[in-house]
Amino acid sequence: MAVGTRGSVKGLTPQQLREAQVRMVLANTYHLLARPGPEVVEALGGLHRFMGWDGPILTDSGGYQVFSLAGLRRISDDEVEFASHIDGARIRLSPASATRVQNQLGADIIMAFDECVSLPCEPKRLRESVDRTVRWAGLSQAAHERDDQWMFGIVQGGIDKALRSDCSEQLKQLNFPGYAIGGLSVGESHEDMMATVEHTAALLPAEKPRYLMGVGTPRDLVKAIGLGIDMFDCVLPTRNGRNAFAFVRGGGMKLRNEKYKTDDRPLDEQCDCYTCRNFSRGYIRHLILVKEMTGPILVSLHNLAFYQWLMDETRKAIREDRFAEWASQWDVKEQYHQDDNFEY
Amino acid sequence: MAVGTRGSVKGLTPQQLREAQVRMVLANTYHLLARPGPEVVEALGGLHRFMGWDGPILTDSGGYQVFSLAGLRRISDDEVEFASHIDGARIRLSPASATRVQNQLGADIIMAFDECVSLPCEPKRLRESVDRTVRWAGLSQAAHERDDQWMFGIVQGGIDKALRSDCSEQLKQLNFPGYAIGGLSVGESHEDMMATVEHTAALLPAEKPRYLMGVGTPRDLVKAIGLGIDMFDCVLPTRNGRNAFAFVRGGGMKLRNEKYKTDDRPLDEQCDCYTCRNFSRGYIRHLILVKEMTGPILVSLHNLAFYQWLMDETRKAIREDRFAEWASQWDVKEQYHQDDNFEY
Repeated sequence: MAVGTRGSVKGLTPQQLREAQVRMVLANTYHLLARPGPEVVEALGGLHRFMGWDGPILTDSGGYQVFSLAGLRRISDDEVEFASHIDGARIRLSPASATRVQNQLGADIIMAFDECVSLPCEPKRLRESVDRTVRWAGLSQAAHERDDQWMFGIVQGGIDKALRSDCSEQLKQLNFPGYAIGGLSVGESHEDMMATVEHTAALLPAEKPRYLMGVGTPRDLVKAIGLGIDMFDCVLPTRNGRNAFAFVRGGGMKLRNEKYKTDDRPLDEQCDCYTCRNFSRGYIRHLILVKEMTGPILVSLHNLAFYQWLMDETRKAIREDRFAEWASQWDVKEQYHQDDNFEY
Repeated sequence: MAVGTRGSVKGLTPQQLREAQVRMVLANTYHLLARPGPEVVEALGGLHRFMGWDGPILTDSGGYQVFSLAGLRRISDDEVEFASHIDGARIRLSPASATRVQNQLGADIIMAFDECVSLPCEPKRLRESVDRTVRWAGLSQAAHERDDQWMFGIVQGGIDKALRSDCSEQLKQLNFPGYAIGGLSVGESHEDMMATVEHTAALLPAEKPRYLMGVGTPRDLVKAIGLGIDMFDCVLPTRNGRNAFAFVRGGGMKLRNEKYKTDDRPLDEQCDCYTCRNFSRGYIRHLILVKEMTGPILVSLHNLAFYQWLMDETRKAIREDRFAEWASQWDVKEQYHQDDNFEY
C-alpha cells in the first residue's frame, strides 16, 4: 500500500498512482480526525469519493500516532486523551470512538484500536500494552457497525515471543477476517524484527491476510513474504522520493550527487515507469537542486512503481517455485539508505 | 503558453499538461542560465528532451529577469554584468551571449535580447532603452546560428506611442518571423496597457505572430486578442493555482474560504478537466489547508485547462463571427484577483 496520510499520496494524483501500478492506499485515521475531521469526509461522500480513489483503502486505527505523535494523557484504561500535534487541542479516543471514526471515513479495511509501545520496553509495560490491546480489540469489534468494511486485529508484544503468542491466541478467539503485526520497526534490530515476524506470522491463520504494519525496505518486504506476510504499508518509496533517493535495481541512488549532472539515463534502465520512460537522471537532479516540486514527484512515482515491480516479481517467483533464490538476491544489509534530512 | 520557468511547470508532468490541453510551454533563459547552465541542458539533449516535452517551447531572452531580479551593473552599452539572484555570482550577458545560450537550450522560438524598464519611467531613460533594444535586436539576429529556431523581435517603449511606433518600424526592417510586445504589465494601468497594445499591434505585420509578453488575466487576454494578439505567456494560472485561487466561469474562487468546507461540487461545474471530473471543492480545500502538494497541483491543472478553454472558445467565437459579443462578457474589472501571499 502507498501511504496517503491525509487523504493524498504526497504530490501524486490517483491517475499517477494507477500509472505506477499502485493497487491500494493507506490513510491515517489520526491525521484525518485532526483535519478535516471525519464528519467532513463523510459529508464529502466518504474516503473513496473524497480522495478520488476507487481502489481499496485501509485506515489505521490512530493508535500508533496517538502514542508517537500526540501529547498523550491517559484518562482511563479504555480511553486516552491527547493534545493534537497541530494546535494542542484536546481530543479523546477510545476503541469505540476510533472505530466510529473509521466507520465514518469508510475505508475497505479498518483496524482495531491498539496500543503500540516503542522498543526497548520494560516487561511489565509491554505486558500491560498486550492486555490492553486484546481488550481494545474486543471493544473495537463490538463498536464496528458497517459490514461492508473488514476490521483487522493487531498483534502487539514487542520482540517477546511469549507475549506475541499470547496476543495472537487471544485475538484469534475474536475471529477477525485478517490480522496485522504491529509494534515493529520501532527501534529494534532487523534480526529481532524478523525473528518476531517469523514467530508471529506462523501463529496467524494462513488462509486470512497477514499484514506487517509500517515495514519496510525491499529487503524487509521480500524476507517477510517468505515468512508468510501478505500486506505491507510503508512511507519509504514516497518519503525517500521526496528526499531525492531513488530505489533502483541493484541499490539506491542519491540524486543530489554531482555525478548525475549530465547523466542522460533513466533512474533505472530496466524500469518502464512514467518517470523512467521520459526523464533523465540529470533533469531530475536539476529539479531537486532548484527545489521544483516536480522532482520529488517524479522520484516518488518511480519508487512506487519500483515497489510494485518488486511485489509483482516476488509473486512470480513464488508461482514459479524459485522464491528462495529470488529472495536471496534481496538479502543485502544496508543496501537501501533512508535519509532523514527531508526538504519537502 | 504555460510557464515552466526552470524547465518544469511547477508540480506538473508533461502528461498532466497534455491532459489540461496545454499546447506550448515557455521556459526562462535567465533561470536556466543560472541553474543548471545551458551546457548541461545541451548535454542532456536540449530543452525538449530535458523537460520531456515534445510540444513547442519558447525561451525568453533573459532580458526581463536581468533587469528585474538580478543585481545589475552595466559594463558597456552592449553588455551587462549582474549578480545572480541565487548566490550573487557575477554573470555577463549580451545580445550575442543571450542568443548563444538560447541556441544551446534549443527552444522552437527564441527572443532577441532586449532592455525592459519598469513604469513609470523618465522619457530620456525610456528613449535610451528603445535605442538599445533596437540595436540589440540586430546584434541578437546576427548572433543567431540555428535555422530550426525562430527568433522574434521585442518592441519596447513603455506607454509612449511615438516610441512604440519608432521601435516597431525599426524592428520591422530586420524582418523577424514574429514580433513581441514587451515592457507591459510592469506597473501601468489596464487602460494604458490596452491603449499601448492597440497602438502597437496595429503596427506589426498581421501575417506574422504577434505575442504579448507576460499578460495576463482572462479579461486582458480576450481584449488583446481583439486587438490582434496571437500569443501569450502568463504565470497567473499556475501561480494563482499554487495560492489556492481557481479561475472559474463567472469569476474566481478562493479555496481557503470556510464556505467550501463540505462543498462536494467540482471547482467549475461546466469544466471537464481532470480536477473537475474527480475532486470536490471540499477535498481541494482540505489539501490546501493541510499544505499537501496535491492541492496546488490540482488547482494549477484546472486553471491551465480553464485558460486553454478560454482560448478555444475565443477562437470559436472568431470563426463564428461573434467575437465582440463574446469579448464583452469578459470585460469585467477586477473579476479576477491575484493574491500575492504565496505559500508554495
